[in-house]
Amino acid sequence: MAVYTEVSDEELTGFLTQYDLGDLTAFKGIAEGVENSNFLMRTTHGTYILTLYEKRVRAEDLPFFLGLMHHLSGKGFACPLPVAGKDGESLRELCGRPAAIVTFLDGLSPRRALPDHCRLLGEALARMHIAGGDFALRRDNSLSLADWRPLFERSRARAHEVRPDLAEALERELDHLDAAWPRDLPCGVIHADLFPDNVFFLSERLSGFIDFYFACNDFYAYDLAICLNAWCFERDNAFNVTKARLLLNSYRNARAVDAAELEALPVLARGAAVRFLLTRLYDWLNHPEGALVKPKDPLEYWDKLRFHQDVRGPGAYGLD
Amino acid sequence: MAVYTEVSDEELTGFLTQYDLGDLTAFKGIAEGVENSNFLMRTTHGTYILTLYEKRVRAEDLPFFLGLMHHLSGKGFACPLPVAGKDGESLRELCGRPAAIVTFLDGLSPRRALPDHCRLLGEALARMHIAGGDFALRRDNSLSLADWRPLFERSRARAHEVRPDLAEALERELDHLDAAWPRDLPCGVIHADLFPDNVFFLSERLSGFIDFYFACNDFYAYDLAICLNAWCFERDNAFNVTKARLLLNSYRNARAVDAAELEALPVLARGAAVRFLLTRLYDWLNHPEGALVKPKDPLEYWDKLRFHQDVRGPGAYGLD
Repeated sequence: MAVYTEVSDEELTGFLTQYDLGDLTAFKGIAEGVENSNFLMRTTHGTYILTLYEKRVRAEDLPFFLGLMHHLSGKGFACPLPVAGKDGESLRELCGRPAAIVTFLDGLSPRRALPDHCRLLGEALARMHIAGGDFALRRDNSLSLADWRPLFERSRARAHEVRPDLAEALERELDHLDAAWPRDLPCGVIHADLFPDNVFFLSERLSGFIDFYFACNDFYAYDLAICLNAWCFERDNAFNVTKARLLLNSYRNARAVDAAELEALPVLARGAAVRFLLTRLYDWLNHPEGALVKPKDPLEYWDKLRFHQDVRGPGAYGLD
Repeated sequence: MAVYTEVSDEELTGFLTQYDLGDLTAFKGIAEGVENSNFLMRTTHGTYILTLYEKRVRAEDLPFFLGLMHHLSGKGFACPLPVAGKDGESLRELCGRPAAIVTFLDGLSPRRALPDHCRLLGEALARMHIAGGDFALRRDNSLSLADWRPLFERSRARAHEVRPDLAEALERELDHLDAAWPRDLPCGVIHADLFPDNVFFLSERLSGFIDFYFACNDFYAYDLAICLNAWCFERDNAFNVTKARLLLNSYRNARAVDAAELEALPVLARGAAVRFLLTRLYDWLNHPEGALVKPKDPLEYWDKLRFHQDVRGPGAYGLD
């Protein structure tokens, strides 16, 4: 949850004169996303989300993120559509921060993922990968293999505060990932943060993805690995193979997954677990006192990592 | 800002089957109110706010609050209207908390009150007082004169952490208020928390009041005194007599204010300043580390109190 920046009446009014969105009828800070300030905005034309990008998002990446939403929408993939101002630009500045308005996407994020959600997710993820295939911009993943060790170094000295053996275990795991990480798998634009918060459902269908602010170019199968971790474990961190099977099979029905991708799933899932463990560990050790955002438990991802370490092959994920 | 309670999918679905509100299309925690959990809810029938009442609101007071909104709406005074379920009840339980759905009120709270806002506020406040005149329920103010000394005692020992002389000054002020507080002024239902956050404007008009969870029976003029403090001081805590004049005169145009009420304004304004100073002081000294809500500065109300202590009569508020 996050509303970091207070927008004054004058700044908001001035900002909106740059758009053809009618008159403002409601404006409320919403508890969505942990990286940016988000406001629900109703005007005489419709409902929108105004986002102010806070410091964790690099301004130079915004054309990629907004361009991607525009591209995916154009391909019929449901996601928020950036709204252009009178000058044709959708990215501008408000309260000294980059800011953009996007259309409001109807739907509800599941608090708890059910098997059917996983089935719908797999198909939609494949459709997103295909729809992004000819997106012209490129953005390297800034939280991939090469970035994990420097990220780990920033927490190493205090990792024992979270778990006594965590530093040593992560050290060994990073060595393993360096040696075993695949070099050559099908690549393209991935979402890279597809937690249930970022997927909306409406009745019995998936109504779209939101929050593309980690999207980047990387292995398609790495996106699947992130989803395995985010959707297929229960509250007690037990792996639910039924959910994994539904996720993977519905993905494969919509996009052909080759043998090398399947073979790589266990190591990609370990890497995906390490990536979230490391950012959560850093946030846990460094969140300011009295911060508005409660840091997430890094040890949730420790448990997931341990599960994948014991996996002997992709069959463990319910694949036939 | 506040979303304290996470509502599970099953609880939400089960709750909504008790209403005729169509299908849910969006559900978002919103940063509104500091006492309760609020969610913006869109359904195929319209837009609503779902509120879960957290521990600071006493469950036995809720029929008064919801009944008042219902009563005021019925009199044509714009405010959220509690939505009754299929059983005719608007108050029920969700996630172990009292909960209610109200209609969504269009409008924007000013971040900074302008003179015109104060003029519109005065008239609307008078209309609310008149509309509430025949409301059948009654609720004593639980934060009035007799409650301030016990509230002060809970912070006294640590008041010096906020300001070295605060405890002694508050002691003297409470003695003064005990002696000077009026005993017999026109009474009725007051809002008692009419900060700019709780007043919505749309174009050039006031579109309604929200957040009636401090409403109670008390002196009408005490509501005016609360508004003087909340609306007529600038960011640097300088008193803006133009705003006060507009507030008071537009109020008096809509409801006749007698001489005793006017005469009492300075002491009521001191009392209103003490009331908010004391609750803010307590919250300041007792907010849990890492709390989602940042406590408000008690010393803002210290400055306001000091202003009213120097006032020699209601003329200081711009009255003719």
